[in-house]
Amino acid sequence: MTVKNCLIARGALIYQHDLVNLYGCEIGADSRIGPFVEIQEGCVIGERCKISSHSFLCEGVTLEDEVFVGHGVMFTNDRHPASTNADGSLKDAQDWTCERTHVGRGAAIGSNATILPGVTIGKGAVVGAGAVVTHDVPENTTVIGVPARAVGTAKAGAKAARHGDAQHKVMS
Amino acid sequence: MTVKNCLIARGALIYQHDLVNLYGCEIGADSRIGPFVEIQEGCVIGERCKISSHSFLCEGVTLEDEVFVGHGVMFTNDRHPASTNADGSLKDAQDWTCERTHVGRGAAIGSNATILPGVTIGKGAVVGAGAVVTHDVPENTTVIGVPARAVGTAKAGAKAARHGDAQHKVMS
Amino acid sequence: MTVKNCLIARGALIYQHDLVNLYGCEIGADSRIGPFVEIQEGCVIGERCKISSHSFLCEGVTLEDEVFVGHGVMFTNDRHPASTNADGSLKDAQDWTCERTHVGRGAAIGSNATILPGVTIGKGAVVGAGAVVTHDVPENTTVIGVPARAVGTAKAGAKAARHGDAQHKVMS
Repeated sequence: MTVKNCLIARGALIYQHDLVNLYGCEIGADSRIGPFVEIQEGCVIGERCKISSHSFLCEGVTLEDEVFVGHGVMFTNDRHPASTNADGSLKDAQDWTCERTHVGRGAAIGSNATILPGVTIGKGAVVGAGAVVTHDVPENTTVIGVPARAVGTAKAGAKAARHGDAQHKVMS
Repeated sequence: MTVKNCLIARGALIYQHDLVNLYGCEIGADSRIGPFVEIQEGCVIGERCKISSHSFLCEGVTLEDEVFVGHGVMFTNDRHPASTNADGSLKDAQDWTCERTHVGRGAAIGSNATILPGVTIGKGAVVGAGAVVTHDVPENTTVIGVPARAVGTAKAGAKAARHGDAQHKVMS
Repeated sequence: MTVKNCLIARGALIYQHDLVNLYGCEIGADSRIGPFVEIQEGCVIGERCKISSHSFLCEGVTLEDEVFVGHGVMFTNDRHPASTNADGSLKDAQDWTCERTHVGRGAAIGSNATILPGVTIGKGAVVGAGAVVTHDVPENTTVIGVPARAVGTAKAGAKAARHGDAQHKVMS
Protein backbone atom coordinates (compact mmCIF):
# COMPACT_ATOMS: atom_id res chain seq x y z
CA MET A 1 0.00 0.00 0.00
CA THR A 2 1.63 3.19 -1.13
CA VAL A 3 -1.23 5.66 -0.62
CA LYS A 4 -1.82 5.96 3.12
CA ASN A 5 -3.85 8.26 5.36
CA CYS A 6 -4.46 10.82 2.63
CA LEU A 7 -7.47 13.05 2.08
CA ILE A 8 -8.12 12.73 -1.62
CA ALA A 9 -10.94 14.91 -2.93
CA ARG A 10 -13.52 14.01 -5.55
CA GLY A 11 -12.18 13.87 -9.08
CA ALA A 12 -8.53 13.70 -8.08
CA LEU A 13 -6.62 11.24 -10.22
CA ILE A 14 -3.58 9.20 -9.26
CA TYR A 15 -2.46 7.61 -12.51
CA GLN A 16 -0.55 4.71 -10.96
CA HIS A 17 -1.38 3.84 -7.36
CA ASP A 18 1.39 1.26 -7.29
CA LEU A 19 4.08 3.72 -8.34
CA VAL A 20 3.58 6.60 -5.90
CA ASN A 21 4.33 7.15 -2.22
CA LEU A 22 1.72 9.42 -0.67
CA TYR A 23 1.08 9.61 3.05
CA GLY A 24 -0.76 11.98 5.36
CA CYS A 25 -1.31 14.59 2.66
CA GLU A 26 -4.33 16.36 1.17
CA ILE A 27 -5.04 16.32 -2.57
CA GLY A 28 -7.65 18.79 -3.81
CA ALA A 29 -10.50 18.10 -6.23
CA ASP A 30 -9.60 17.24 -9.82
CA SER A 31 -5.85 17.33 -9.21
CA ARG A 32 -3.68 14.81 -11.03
CA ILE A 33 -0.64 12.97 -9.69
CA GLY A 34 1.91 11.24 -11.96
CA PRO A 35 3.98 8.12 -11.25
CA PHE A 36 7.15 8.06 -9.12
CA VAL A 37 5.86 10.94 -7.01
CA GLU A 38 6.31 11.21 -3.26
CA ILE A 39 4.15 13.56 -1.21
CA GLN A 40 4.83 13.69 2.52
CA GLU A 41 2.68 14.13 5.57
CA GLY A 42 1.26 17.60 6.08
CA CYS A 43 1.57 18.63 2.44
CA VAL A 44 -1.52 20.36 1.04
CA ILE A 45 -2.28 20.31 -2.70
CA GLY A 46 -5.08 22.56 -3.96
CA GLU A 47 -7.69 21.88 -6.63
CA ARG A 48 -6.97 21.30 -10.32
CA CYS A 49 -3.21 21.02 -9.75
CA LYS A 50 -0.94 18.79 -11.79
CA ILE A 51 2.04 17.06 -10.17
CA SER A 52 4.16 15.43 -12.87
CA SER A 53 6.23 12.28 -12.58
CA HIS A 54 9.37 11.96 -10.45
CA SER A 55 8.62 14.97 -8.22
CA PHE A 56 8.97 15.19 -4.46
CA LEU A 57 6.81 17.38 -2.23
CA CYS A 58 7.90 17.48 1.38
CA GLU A 59 6.22 18.34 4.62
CA GLY A 60 5.51 22.05 4.79
CA VAL A 61 4.65 22.52 1.11
CA THR A 62 1.32 24.11 0.25
CA LEU A 63 0.15 24.51 -3.33
CA GLU A 64 -2.84 26.77 -3.98
CA ASP A 65 -5.26 25.81 -6.76
CA GLU A 66 -4.21 25.27 -10.39
CA VAL A 67 -0.49 24.92 -9.76
CA PHE A 68 1.62 22.99 -12.26
CA VAL A 69 4.64 21.03 -11.02
CA GLY A 70 6.84 19.58 -13.77
CA HIS A 71 8.85 16.35 -13.74
CA GLY A 72 11.71 15.77 -11.33
CA VAL A 73 10.97 18.86 -9.22
CA MET A 74 12.43 18.67 -5.70
CA PHE A 75 11.06 20.75 -2.85
CA THR A 76 13.08 21.00 0.37
CA ASN A 77 12.28 22.04 3.94
CA ASP A 78 15.51 21.69 5.91
CA ARG A 79 18.25 24.28 5.45
CA HIS A 80 20.80 22.15 7.26
CA PRO A 81 20.04 18.57 6.34
CA ALA A 82 22.04 15.90 8.11
CA SER A 83 21.66 12.25 8.84
CA THR A 84 22.63 12.52 12.50
CA ASN A 85 22.92 14.98 15.34
CA ALA A 86 26.27 16.23 16.66
CA ASP A 87 26.35 13.32 19.11
CA GLY A 88 25.93 10.76 16.31
CA SER A 89 22.33 9.87 17.16
CA LEU A 90 19.88 9.62 14.26
CA LYS A 91 18.01 12.84 13.58
CA ASP A 92 14.39 12.66 14.64
CA ALA A 93 11.28 14.81 14.24
CA GLN A 94 12.32 17.18 17.02
CA ASP A 95 15.87 17.64 15.75
CA TRP A 96 15.22 20.01 12.87
CA THR A 97 13.15 23.00 11.81
CA CYS A 98 10.71 22.66 8.93
CA GLU A 99 10.74 25.76 6.74
CA ARG A 100 7.47 25.99 4.85
CA THR A 101 7.01 26.63 1.12
CA HIS A 102 3.96 28.29 -0.37
CA VAL A 103 3.10 28.28 -4.08
CA GLY A 104 0.44 30.70 -5.28
CA ARG A 105 -2.52 29.98 -7.52
CA GLY A 106 -1.74 29.18 -11.13
CA ALA A 107 2.04 29.13 -10.77
CA ALA A 108 4.07 26.74 -12.95
CA ILE A 109 7.33 25.08 -11.92
CA GLY A 110 9.48 23.64 -14.71
CA SER A 111 11.02 20.16 -14.78
CA ASN A 112 14.11 19.40 -12.70
CA ALA A 113 13.72 22.65 -10.75
CA THR A 114 14.91 22.69 -7.13
CA ILE A 115 13.08 24.79 -4.53
CA LEU A 116 15.14 25.80 -1.49
CA PRO A 117 13.49 25.86 1.97
CA GLY A 118 11.22 28.66 3.08
CA VAL A 119 10.48 30.39 -0.20
CA THR A 120 7.17 31.74 -1.42
CA ILE A 121 6.38 31.48 -5.13
CA GLY A 122 3.73 34.04 -6.07
CA LYS A 123 0.49 33.55 -7.97
CA GLY A 124 1.00 33.07 -11.69
CA ALA A 125 4.79 32.90 -11.39
CA VAL A 126 6.83 30.69 -13.71
CA VAL A 127 9.99 28.84 -12.63
CA GLY A 128 12.11 27.74 -15.59
CA ALA A 129 13.15 24.13 -16.06
CA GLY A 130 16.36 23.31 -14.19
CA ALA A 131 16.24 26.47 -12.05
CA VAL A 132 17.36 26.51 -8.42
CA VAL A 133 15.02 28.83 -6.51
CA THR A 134 16.75 30.43 -3.52
CA HIS A 135 14.58 33.53 -2.94
CA ASP A 136 10.89 34.38 -3.03
CA VAL A 137 9.44 34.74 -6.53
CA PRO A 138 7.00 37.66 -6.93
CA GLU A 139 3.58 37.15 -8.51
CA ASN A 140 3.48 36.81 -12.29
CA THR A 141 7.26 36.77 -12.52
CA THR A 142 9.39 34.36 -14.55
CA VAL A 143 12.68 33.18 -13.02
CA ILE A 144 15.39 31.00 -14.58
CA GLY A 145 18.90 29.75 -13.88
CA VAL A 146 21.11 28.78 -10.94
CA PRO A 147 20.44 30.60 -8.71
CA ALA A 148 17.11 31.62 -10.23
CA ARG A 149 16.85 35.25 -11.36
CA ALA A 150 13.86 37.20 -12.69
CA VAL A 151 13.79 37.69 -16.45
CA GLY A 152 10.48 39.49 -16.76
CA THR A 153 6.82 39.07 -16.09
CA ALA A 154 5.29 35.68 -16.75
CA LYS A 155 3.12 37.38 -19.36
CA ALA A 156 6.14 38.93 -21.08
CA GLY A 157 7.78 35.54 -21.00
CA ALA A 158 4.86 34.00 -22.84
CA LYS A 159 5.06 36.72 -25.45
CA ALA A 160 8.82 36.32 -25.92
CA ALA A 161 8.35 32.63 -26.46
CA ARG A 162 6.33 33.35 -29.55
CA HIS A 163 9.11 35.39 -31.09
CA GLY A 164 12.16 33.28 -31.61
CA ASP A 165 15.39 33.24 -29.77
CA ALA A 166 14.34 34.99 -26.62
CA GLN A 167 12.19 32.02 -25.80
CA HIS A 168 15.25 30.11 -24.76
CA LYS A 169 16.19 32.71 -22.23
CA VAL A 170 12.74 32.60 -20.74
CA MET A 171 12.44 28.88 -20.25
CA SER A 172 15.99 27.82 -19.49
CA MET B 1 0.37 -3.40 -15.38
CA THR B 2 2.83 -0.65 -16.08
CA VAL B 3 3.90 -1.52 -19.64
CA LYS B 4 0.93 -0.89 -21.88
CA ASN B 5 0.35 -0.73 -25.63
CA CYS B 6 4.05 -0.55 -26.45
CA LEU B 7 5.88 -1.94 -29.47
CA ILE B 8 8.93 -3.58 -27.94
CA ALA B 9 11.37 -5.04 -30.45
CA ARG B 10 13.31 -8.26 -30.15
CA GLY B 11 16.16 -8.16 -27.69
CA ALA B 12 14.97 -5.04 -25.89
CA LEU B 13 15.39 -5.34 -22.13
CA ILE B 14 13.29 -3.72 -19.42
CA TYR B 15 15.17 -4.47 -16.22
CA GLN B 16 12.20 -4.09 -13.87
CA HIS B 17 8.75 -4.30 -15.42
CA ASP B 18 7.13 -3.42 -12.09
CA LEU B 19 9.10 -0.19 -11.69
CA VAL B 20 8.56 1.55 -15.03
CA ASN B 21 5.66 3.36 -16.64
CA LEU B 22 5.69 2.86 -20.41
CA TYR B 23 2.67 3.38 -22.61
CA GLY B 24 2.05 3.76 -26.31
CA CYS B 25 5.75 4.01 -27.15
CA GLU B 26 8.15 2.11 -29.42
CA ILE B 27 11.37 0.57 -28.11
CA GLY B 28 13.90 -0.56 -30.73
CA ALA B 29 15.80 -3.84 -30.82
CA ASP B 30 18.36 -4.47 -28.08
CA SER B 31 17.61 -1.23 -26.22
CA ARG B 32 17.71 -1.27 -22.43
CA ILE B 33 15.39 0.56 -20.04
CA GLY B 34 16.25 1.10 -16.36
CA PRO B 35 13.89 1.31 -13.38
CA PHE B 36 11.82 4.40 -12.45
CA VAL B 37 11.59 5.41 -16.11
CA GLU B 38 8.49 6.86 -17.73
CA ILE B 39 8.12 6.88 -21.52
CA GLN B 40 4.97 8.44 -22.91
CA GLU B 41 2.74 7.72 -25.85
CA GLY B 42 4.20 8.55 -29.24
CA CYS B 43 7.81 8.42 -28.08
CA VAL B 44 10.12 6.48 -30.40
CA ILE B 45 13.34 4.89 -29.12
CA GLY B 46 15.79 3.49 -31.68
CA GLU B 47 17.89 0.35 -31.53
CA ARG B 48 20.69 -0.31 -29.03
CA CYS B 49 19.79 2.73 -26.92
CA LYS B 50 20.21 2.87 -23.16
CA ILE B 51 17.72 4.77 -20.99
CA SER B 52 19.02 4.93 -17.43
CA SER B 53 17.00 5.00 -14.24
CA HIS B 54 14.79 7.92 -13.16
CA SER B 55 14.51 9.47 -16.63
CA PHE B 56 11.38 10.83 -18.30
CA LEU B 57 10.78 10.81 -22.06
CA CYS B 58 7.68 12.66 -23.15
CA GLU B 59 5.46 12.57 -26.17
CA GLY B 60 7.29 14.00 -29.16
CA VAL B 61 10.74 12.63 -28.29
CA THR B 62 12.54 10.56 -30.91
CA LEU B 63 15.88 8.91 -30.23
CA GLU B 64 17.81 7.53 -33.18
CA ASP B 65 19.86 4.36 -32.69
CA GLU B 66 22.61 4.01 -30.06
CA VAL B 67 21.62 6.99 -27.92
CA PHE B 68 22.61 7.05 -24.27
CA VAL B 69 20.31 8.77 -21.76
CA GLY B 70 21.75 9.08 -18.24
CA HIS B 71 19.91 8.99 -14.92
CA GLY B 72 17.35 11.62 -13.96
CA VAL B 73 17.19 13.19 -17.43
CA MET B 74 14.00 15.16 -18.06
CA PHE B 75 12.74 15.87 -21.56
CA THR B 76 9.98 18.46 -22.02
CA ASN B 77 7.54 19.26 -24.80
CA ASP B 78 5.44 22.19 -23.59
CA ARG B 79 6.96 25.66 -23.53
CA HIS B 80 4.13 27.05 -21.44
CA PRO B 81 3.13 24.31 -19.05
CA ALA B 82 0.10 24.96 -16.91
CA SER B 83 -2.39 22.89 -15.00
CA THR B 84 -5.43 24.74 -16.29
CA ASN B 85 -6.61 27.01 -19.07
CA ALA B 86 -7.32 30.70 -18.54
CA ASP B 87 -10.93 29.83 -17.66
CA GLY B 88 -9.82 27.43 -14.91
CA SER B 89 -10.75 24.26 -16.80
CA LEU B 90 -8.23 21.42 -16.75
CA LYS B 91 -5.85 21.45 -19.70
CA ASP B 92 -6.59 18.69 -22.17
CA ALA B 93 -4.90 17.20 -25.23
CA GLN B 94 -6.11 20.00 -27.49
CA ASP B 95 -5.07 22.80 -25.15
CA TRP B 96 -1.34 22.83 -25.80
CA THR B 97 1.25 22.47 -28.55
CA CYS B 98 3.70 19.59 -28.42
CA GLU B 99 7.18 20.69 -29.49
CA ARG B 100 9.15 17.70 -30.69
CA THR B 101 12.68 16.72 -29.67
CA HIS B 102 15.03 14.75 -31.90
CA VAL B 103 18.25 13.12 -30.69
CA GLY B 104 20.73 11.93 -33.32
CA ARG B 105 22.49 8.60 -33.54
CA GLY B 106 25.10 7.88 -30.90
CA ALA B 107 24.47 11.02 -28.83
CA ALA B 108 24.96 10.84 -25.04
CA ILE B 109 22.99 12.86 -22.48
CA GLY B 110 24.47 13.12 -18.98
CA SER B 111 22.61 12.51 -15.73
CA ASN B 112 20.20 15.14 -14.36
CA ALA B 113 20.25 17.04 -17.66
CA THR B 114 17.11 18.94 -18.65
CA ILE B 115 16.11 19.22 -22.32
CA LEU B 116 13.90 22.20 -23.20
CA PRO B 117 11.09 21.78 -25.77
CA GLY B 118 11.76 21.70 -29.47
CA VAL B 119 15.52 21.19 -29.57
CA THR B 120 17.49 18.91 -31.85
CA ILE B 121 20.57 17.20 -30.46
CA GLY B 122 22.90 16.16 -33.28
CA LYS B 123 24.49 12.81 -33.98
CA GLY B 124 27.38 12.03 -31.66
CA ALA B 125 26.75 15.07 -29.47
CA VAL B 126 27.44 14.97 -25.74
CA VAL B 127 25.34 16.82 -23.13
CA GLY B 128 27.15 17.21 -19.80
CA ALA B 129 25.60 16.01 -16.56
CA GLY B 130 23.34 18.64 -14.99
CA ALA B 131 23.16 20.77 -18.16
CA VAL B 132 20.00 22.62 -19.19
CA VAL B 133 19.76 22.44 -22.99
CA THR B 134 17.91 25.43 -24.43
CA HIS B 135 19.19 25.47 -28.04
CA ASP B 136 19.96 22.91 -30.71
CA VAL B 137 23.23 21.04 -30.21
CA PRO B 138 25.28 20.52 -33.42
CA GLU B 139 26.59 17.09 -34.34
CA ASN B 140 29.65 15.85 -32.44
CA THR B 141 29.53 18.83 -30.09
CA THR B 142 29.87 18.76 -26.33
CA VAL B 143 27.73 21.19 -24.31
CA ILE B 144 27.74 21.84 -20.55
CA GLY B 145 26.23 24.19 -17.97
CA VAL B 146 23.07 26.22 -17.38
CA PRO B 147 22.16 27.21 -20.01
CA ALA B 148 24.22 24.67 -21.94
CA ARG B 149 27.08 26.08 -24.03
CA ALA B 150 29.43 24.36 -26.46
CA VAL B 151 32.91 23.61 -25.11
CA GLY B 152 34.35 21.82 -28.11
CA THR B 153 33.80 18.81 -30.28
CA ALA B 154 32.74 15.61 -28.60
CA LYS B 155 36.00 14.09 -29.84
CA ALA B 156 38.07 16.90 -28.34
CA GLY B 157 36.14 16.45 -25.13
CA ALA B 158 37.08 12.81 -24.94
CA LYS B 159 40.71 13.70 -25.47
CA ALA B 160 40.67 16.42 -22.81
CA ALA B 161 39.24 13.97 -20.34
CA ARG B 162 42.36 11.87 -20.59
CA HIS B 163 44.58 14.82 -19.65
CA GLY B 164 43.69 15.99 -16.20
CA ASP B 165 41.86 19.06 -15.10
CA ALA B 166 40.13 19.94 -18.33
CA GLN B 167 38.03 16.85 -17.96
CA HIS B 168 35.97 18.59 -15.35
CA LYS B 169 35.15 21.40 -17.71
CA VAL B 170 34.03 18.96 -20.33
CA MET B 171 31.67 16.89 -18.28
CA SER B 172 30.27 19.43 -15.83
CA MET C 1 11.68 -8.75 -5.85
CA THR C 2 13.52 -5.46 -5.92
CA VAL C 3 16.04 -5.98 -3.11
CA LYS C 4 18.50 -8.63 -4.23
CA ASN C 5 21.82 -9.95 -2.95
CA CYS C 6 22.34 -7.07 -0.53
CA LEU C 7 24.05 -7.06 2.85
CA ILE C 8 21.67 -5.09 5.04
CA ALA C 9 22.89 -4.52 8.58
CA ARG C 10 20.82 -4.57 11.75
CA GLY C 11 18.55 -1.60 12.19
CA ALA C 12 18.74 -0.47 8.58
CA LEU C 13 15.35 0.65 7.31
CA ILE C 14 14.04 0.50 3.76
CA TYR C 15 10.78 2.43 3.88
CA GLN C 16 9.18 0.83 0.81
CA HIS C 17 10.64 -2.47 -0.35
CA ASP C 18 8.39 -2.47 -3.41
CA LEU C 19 9.58 0.94 -4.59
CA VAL C 20 13.36 0.58 -4.56
CA ASN C 21 15.89 -1.22 -6.72
CA LEU C 22 18.83 -2.40 -4.64
CA TYR C 23 21.20 -5.13 -5.75
CA GLY C 24 24.60 -6.36 -4.66
CA CYS C 25 25.17 -3.44 -2.27
CA GLU C 26 25.95 -3.07 1.43
CA ILE C 27 23.79 -0.95 3.75
CA GLY C 28 25.26 -0.18 7.18
CA ALA C 29 23.50 -0.39 10.53
CA ASP C 30 20.64 2.03 11.19
CA SER C 31 20.80 3.61 7.73
CA ARG C 32 17.54 4.64 6.06
CA ILE C 33 16.62 4.32 2.39
CA GLY C 34 13.71 6.23 0.83
CA PRO C 35 11.44 5.18 -2.05
CA PHE C 36 12.40 5.36 -5.74
CA VAL C 37 16.06 4.81 -4.88
CA GLU C 38 18.42 2.67 -6.92
CA ILE C 39 21.68 1.42 -5.42
CA GLN C 40 23.92 -0.66 -7.67
CA GLU C 41 26.20 -3.59 -7.12
CA GLY C 42 29.41 -2.82 -5.28
CA CYS C 43 28.09 0.33 -3.61
CA VAL C 44 28.90 0.59 0.10
CA ILE C 45 26.75 2.68 2.46
CA GLY C 46 28.04 3.26 5.99
CA GLU C 47 26.12 3.35 9.26
CA ARG C 48 23.44 5.90 10.19
CA CYS C 49 23.28 7.30 6.66
CA LYS C 50 20.13 8.67 5.08
CA ILE C 51 19.45 8.20 1.37
CA SER C 52 16.40 10.24 0.38
CA SER C 53 13.86 9.45 -2.32
CA HIS C 54 14.62 9.47 -6.04
CA SER C 55 18.40 9.19 -5.66
CA PHE C 56 20.75 6.96 -7.64
CA LEU C 57 23.99 5.51 -6.25
CA CYS C 58 26.09 3.71 -8.81
CA GLU C 59 28.79 1.12 -8.65
CA GLY C 60 31.94 2.60 -7.18
CA VAL C 61 30.25 4.88 -4.64
CA THR C 62 31.27 4.59 -1.00
CA LEU C 63 29.60 6.58 1.74
CA GLU C 64 31.27 6.67 5.14
CA ASP C 65 29.05 6.78 8.24
CA GLU C 66 26.42 9.48 8.88
CA VAL C 67 26.22 10.79 5.32
CA PHE C 68 23.05 12.54 4.19
CA VAL C 69 21.99 12.22 0.54
CA GLY C 70 19.04 14.43 -0.45
CA HIS C 71 16.30 13.75 -2.98
CA GLY C 72 17.02 13.30 -6.67
CA VAL C 73 20.80 13.13 -6.23
CA MET C 74 22.58 11.43 -9.13
CA PHE C 75 26.03 9.91 -8.74
CA THR C 76 27.96 8.93 -11.88
CA ASN C 77 30.94 6.68 -12.55
CA ASP C 78 31.56 6.83 -16.31
CA ARG C 79 33.20 9.91 -17.79
CA HIS C 80 32.35 8.88 -21.34
CA PRO C 81 28.96 7.23 -21.16
CA ALA C 82 27.68 5.67 -24.35
CA SER C 83 25.18 3.04 -25.28
CA THR C 84 27.46 1.24 -27.72
CA ASN C 85 31.10 0.77 -28.64
CA ALA C 86 32.60 2.30 -31.78
CA ASP C 87 31.68 -0.87 -33.71
CA GLY C 88 28.02 -0.55 -32.70
CA SER C 89 28.05 -3.44 -30.25
CA LEU C 90 26.33 -2.90 -26.91
CA LYS C 91 28.70 -1.70 -24.19
CA ASP C 92 29.41 -4.39 -21.65
CA ALA C 93 31.14 -4.59 -18.25
CA GLN C 94 34.61 -4.67 -19.81
CA ASP C 95 33.97 -1.73 -22.14
CA TRP C 96 34.29 1.12 -19.68
CA THR C 97 36.24 2.34 -16.66
CA CYS C 98 34.46 2.82 -13.36
CA GLU C 99 35.69 5.97 -11.59
CA ARG C 100 35.04 5.66 -7.88
CA THR C 101 33.40 8.28 -5.61
CA HIS C 102 34.10 8.58 -1.92
CA VAL C 103 31.99 10.62 0.51
CA GLY C 104 33.45 11.31 3.96
CA ARG C 105 31.78 10.94 7.31
CA GLY C 106 28.96 13.33 8.10
CA ALA C 107 28.87 15.01 4.69
CA ALA C 108 25.51 16.26 3.36
CA ILE C 109 24.53 16.38 -0.32
CA GLY C 110 21.57 18.60 -1.23
CA SER C 111 18.62 17.59 -3.40
CA ASN C 112 18.98 17.39 -7.18
CA ALA C 113 22.77 17.59 -6.92
CA THR C 114 24.82 15.80 -9.58
CA ILE C 115 28.17 14.23 -8.68
CA LEU C 116 30.62 13.79 -11.57
CA PRO C 117 32.79 10.65 -11.74
CA GLY C 118 35.87 10.21 -9.58
CA VAL C 119 35.41 12.96 -7.01
CA THR C 120 36.03 12.78 -3.29
CA ILE C 121 33.73 14.71 -0.99
CA GLY C 122 35.44 15.33 2.35
CA LYS C 123 34.17 14.67 5.87
CA GLY C 124 31.58 17.18 7.00
CA ALA C 125 31.35 18.85 3.58
CA VAL C 126 28.06 20.30 2.34
CA VAL C 127 26.96 20.22 -1.31
CA GLY C 128 24.19 22.73 -2.04
CA ALA C 129 20.93 21.66 -3.62
CA GLY C 130 21.10 21.63 -7.42
CA ALA C 131 24.92 21.81 -7.51
CA VAL C 132 26.98 19.97 -10.12
CA VAL C 133 30.14 18.71 -8.40
CA THR C 134 33.06 18.44 -10.85
CA HIS C 135 36.05 18.58 -8.47
CA ASP C 136 36.96 17.18 -5.07
CA VAL C 137 35.33 18.97 -2.14
CA PRO C 138 37.63 19.53 0.87
CA GLU C 139 36.55 18.56 4.38
CA ASN C 140 34.05 20.86 6.10
CA THR C 141 33.63 22.94 2.98
CA THR C 142 30.35 24.13 1.47
CA VAL C 143 30.04 24.18 -2.32
CA ILE C 144 27.19 25.47 -4.46
CA GLY C 145 26.30 26.16 -8.10
CA VAL C 146 27.07 24.81 -11.58
CA PRO C 147 29.90 23.94 -11.57
CA ALA C 148 30.08 23.76 -7.78
CA ARG C 149 32.39 26.32 -6.11
CA ALA C 150 33.39 26.68 -2.47
CA VAL C 151 31.60 29.46 -0.57
CA GLY C 152 33.11 28.91 2.85
CA THR C 153 33.47 26.33 5.55
CA ALA C 154 30.46 24.20 6.34
CA LYS C 155 30.51 25.70 9.82
CA ALA C 156 30.51 29.27 8.47
CA GLY C 157 27.68 28.27 6.20
CA ALA C 158 25.59 27.15 9.13
CA LYS C 159 26.27 30.44 10.88
CA ALA C 160 25.36 32.52 7.82
CA ALA C 161 22.10 30.67 7.54
CA ARG C 162 21.03 32.03 10.89
CA HIS C 163 21.57 35.60 9.75
CA GLY C 164 19.30 36.38 6.88
CA ASP C 165 20.05 36.80 3.24
CA ALA C 166 23.40 35.08 3.11
CA GLN C 167 21.64 31.82 3.76
CA HIS C 168 20.45 31.78 0.20
CA LYS C 169 23.96 32.02 -1.10
CA VAL C 170 25.05 29.16 1.08
CA MET C 171 22.39 26.65 0.17
CA SER C 172 21.71 27.46 -3.46
